[in-house]
Amino acid sequence: MNLTDLTAGEAATAIACGELSAEQYVAACLERIAAFEPQVQAFVHLDPQHALGQARALDHYRAGGGRLGPLHGVPVAVKDIFDTADYPTEYGSPIFAGRRPASDCTVVAKLRAAGAIIVGKTVTTEFAYFHPGKTRNPRDLNRTPGGSSSGSAAAVAAGLVPLAIGSQTNGSVIRPASFCGVFAIKPSHGLVSRAGVLTLSHALDHVGAFSRSVDDLALAMDVVVGYDADDPDSKAYAEPDFRTTLADEPSSSRLAFMRTPVWERADAETRAAFEAFAQQIGAVAIEMPPANAAAWEAQRAIMAVEMAHNLGAAVDGGGEVSNAFRKLIEEGRRVTATHYLAARRDARRYAESIMRVFERADAIVTPATPGVAPEGIGTTGDPVFCTFWSLTGLPTLNLPLLAGAGGLPIGVQLAGAPGRDAHLLRAAKALLRALPQ
Amino acid sequence: MNLTDLTAGEAATAIACGELSAEQYVAACLERIAAFEPQVQAFVHLDPQHALGQARALDHYRAGGGRLGPLHGVPVAVKDIFDTADYPTEYGSPIFAGRRPASDCTVVAKLRAAGAIIVGKTVTTEFAYFHPGKTRNPRDLNRTPGGSSSGSAAAVAAGLVPLAIGSQTNGSVIRPASFCGVFAIKPSHGLVSRAGVLTLSHALDHVGAFSRSVDDLALAMDVVVGYDADDPDSKAYAEPDFRTTLADEPSSSRLAFMRTPVWERADAETRAAFEAFAQQIGAVAIEMPPANAAAWEAQRAIMAVEMAHNLGAAVDGGGEVSNAFRKLIEEGRRVTATHYLAARRDARRYAESIMRVFERADAIVTPATPGVAPEGIGTTGDPVFCTFWSLTGLPTLNLPLLAGAGGLPIGVQLAGAPGRDAHLLRAAKALLRALPQ
Repeated sequence: MNLTDLTAGEAATAIACGELSAEQYVAACLERIAAFEPQVQAFVHLDPQHALGQARALDHYRAGGGRLGPLHGVPVAVKDIFDTADYPTEYGSPIFAGRRPASDCTVVAKLRAAGAIIVGKTVTTEFAYFHPGKTRNPRDLNRTPGGSSSGSAAAVAAGLVPLAIGSQTNGSVIRPASFCGVFAIKPSHGLVSRAGVLTLSHALDHVGAFSRSVDDLALAMDVVVGYDADDPDSKAYAEPDFRTTLADEPSSSRLAFMRTPVWERADAETRAAFEAFAQQIGAVAIEMPPANAAAWEAQRAIMAVEMAHNLGAAVDGGGEVSNAFRKLIEEGRRVTATHYLAARRDARRYAESIMRVFERADAIVTPATPGVAPEGIGTTGDPVFCTFWSLTGLPTLNLPLLAGAGGLPIGVQLAGAPGRDAHLLRAAKALLRALPQ
Repeated sequence: MNLTDLTAGEAATAIACGELSAEQYVAACLERIAAFEPQVQAFVHLDPQHALGQARALDHYRAGGGRLGPLHGVPVAVKDIFDTADYPTEYGSPIFAGRRPASDCTVVAKLRAAGAIIVGKTVTTEFAYFHPGKTRNPRDLNRTPGGSSSGSAAAVAAGLVPLAIGSQTNGSVIRPASFCGVFAIKPSHGLVSRAGVLTLSHALDHVGAFSRSVDDLALAMDVVVGYDADDPDSKAYAEPDFRTTLADEPSSSRLAFMRTPVWERADAETRAAFEAFAQQIGAVAIEMPPANAAAWEAQRAIMAVEMAHNLGAAVDGGGEVSNAFRKLIEEGRRVTATHYLAARRDARRYAESIMRVFERADAIVTPATPGVAPEGIGTTGDPVFCTFWSLTGLPTLNLPLLAGAGGLPIGVQLAGAPGRDAHLLRAAKALLRALPQ
């Protein structure tokens, strides 16, 4: 077995037990990066010597008997909209080329405190919106990895790192995870702090994570969740203990299959795959309330308005921006305040309309993307199956369980009740156990 | 001494000690209401038999040895935008004539749990905005009592009740308190729940109280403050214990005198009175940062937008609304979402710009109104000296300390640091003690 086949949890255990040094493990990851990064192009900032230096310092600390965090010695890749004190943070925009934050964002500070090695910064689309970067899909280099967390999804899919951090305002975690065939979580809105992360939309922005197992998502969440006064939407949820919840022997999970109003946007192959999958797992088909069909327009209005508010200066400043970004800012500036407030109010109503589903089901099963990753890297694909969950703030997962043409991955998206993220991961684990291996 | 000269605290103590029954006290208040209400017109709903019935029930409860709340037997008047299960709640609008809420709002429920008797509902301007009701100023019946909490301020000023509840979105507590010559508090934003109260603007709405002493404001606040999940802006502030804080022997308070950018809107008499008062109390003159002059426009934009969002249906429904209200809704509907969000962001900056004042001073002294109550009851006067504090959410008090032409009251407004409401009241008490009696 290659070291780079280890999950984050396996590697952390091996390092904690002394079976493996952080330096050995990071060196193995860097070797794989050297082999695959020229094709995949997941990273925008990468400093192998700095990563090895961090690993040696962690080994030295362990040798001195220091108390180890749950990610001690584990390399993590972080999307380039998260502030880091040691790497530039450039937002995927030439306007911010060379930008050097003074300090780590909350999530990176928590990762480091848990012993993680920030191995590099991954490619994001321009301002984590639409215009793609250089990254290619490791499953097929002629296809998009999805976006906006393109590099983070691709880095995990290519086995360059076991864990990566991304963000989602519309479909930017779940979509690339589906296209690249990895596990991912977009937690409940307000569960993970966005302080020190580029703000697109306070209402819609979520921090998420990519990995190659459900357990690694739980491990990552245990490290990064928690109230933060520096994030205006940070929730004082009781912090779920993810790994403890997962360790409870999962009973069989009760699943509901929801086609959603955008079902017809999925291609025929994907629709057929989901109908068969729902039958296989015994998921009960349920409908979304018809009024929720307006949710997609509400998400668009909120995103356009808040991005115009937060990032409009980038357009006005005369710097280089894509047409797609410029048009979104213009669109946002045309929206009236009462339309925006109505969309915010409606978003709360859409969330409430789904609540009763969770009295009967642990999770909702729905496609993550309309199909496999599209060809070419000129776009990042369609986020339409993620939009409703970003708008309502409900937690979602991507499980890489289905395959389409050419064996390319199609993700199964699981959605759960707000704040019940650990139970959603447990339902996913129960689902995985029930499937034929 | 007449029973109606008692403060709420004095009356509650006398009732608790058995020196006075709730029925006797309420009967005295009702007698005074019978004498003065025909001129003052503070109430829109009043049921003497219901009030006496509540009083008798409270006396019966006390006779049975029941544990008494801090307002046991004290009649309280409540503005007619607060839902009550026993009285209609009509928002000062014919559109809502006869509206009967199913249950009490949080504040009324807390008052009742503390033993208060809701003696009636007081006149509000239309939707707690601009268009006046029938109430007259007890200090001069030819003048406005101010608004929008017109009836609550007038009822306390006329000695009809010792305590009344109102609300402020711009100047609707402090302004009528100034014009009527009573004590009042507009607490920190988020300190008192607005669940079950007509929503004008989540960002700007505050519940407040009127009384004839600082101690009674502390007593009222001890009863009504506290986190409420049904108010989206409810703060998880540690709940201040107001009476305990006030009982600490107040040291001399450090006061700052702030003219604010609207100083020239005060009339010459008021400016001269404040210059002399500031000198008398040794308040250090400080300036507001010049950029804060834009705060008044920001408050207007937020109020217009949020009232259009929350109350626009009243205009669209074809019911009877005033021109002033209709124009505000139209104005709100023209504001862009990015302008609204910029105003919300700026409001936070204005609040922060004031914070450092409180390192050197316990309270800021500034006029409550541009002068005495204007003649006539066709308008409710100018809220301009209250606007900044409603926008920023800082707590304010009205102290009826100055007098203008004909001995009519001019209020001294004290502003404090957010969440430090109890300390603001203590500073007010220290100021009152230092003044010649």
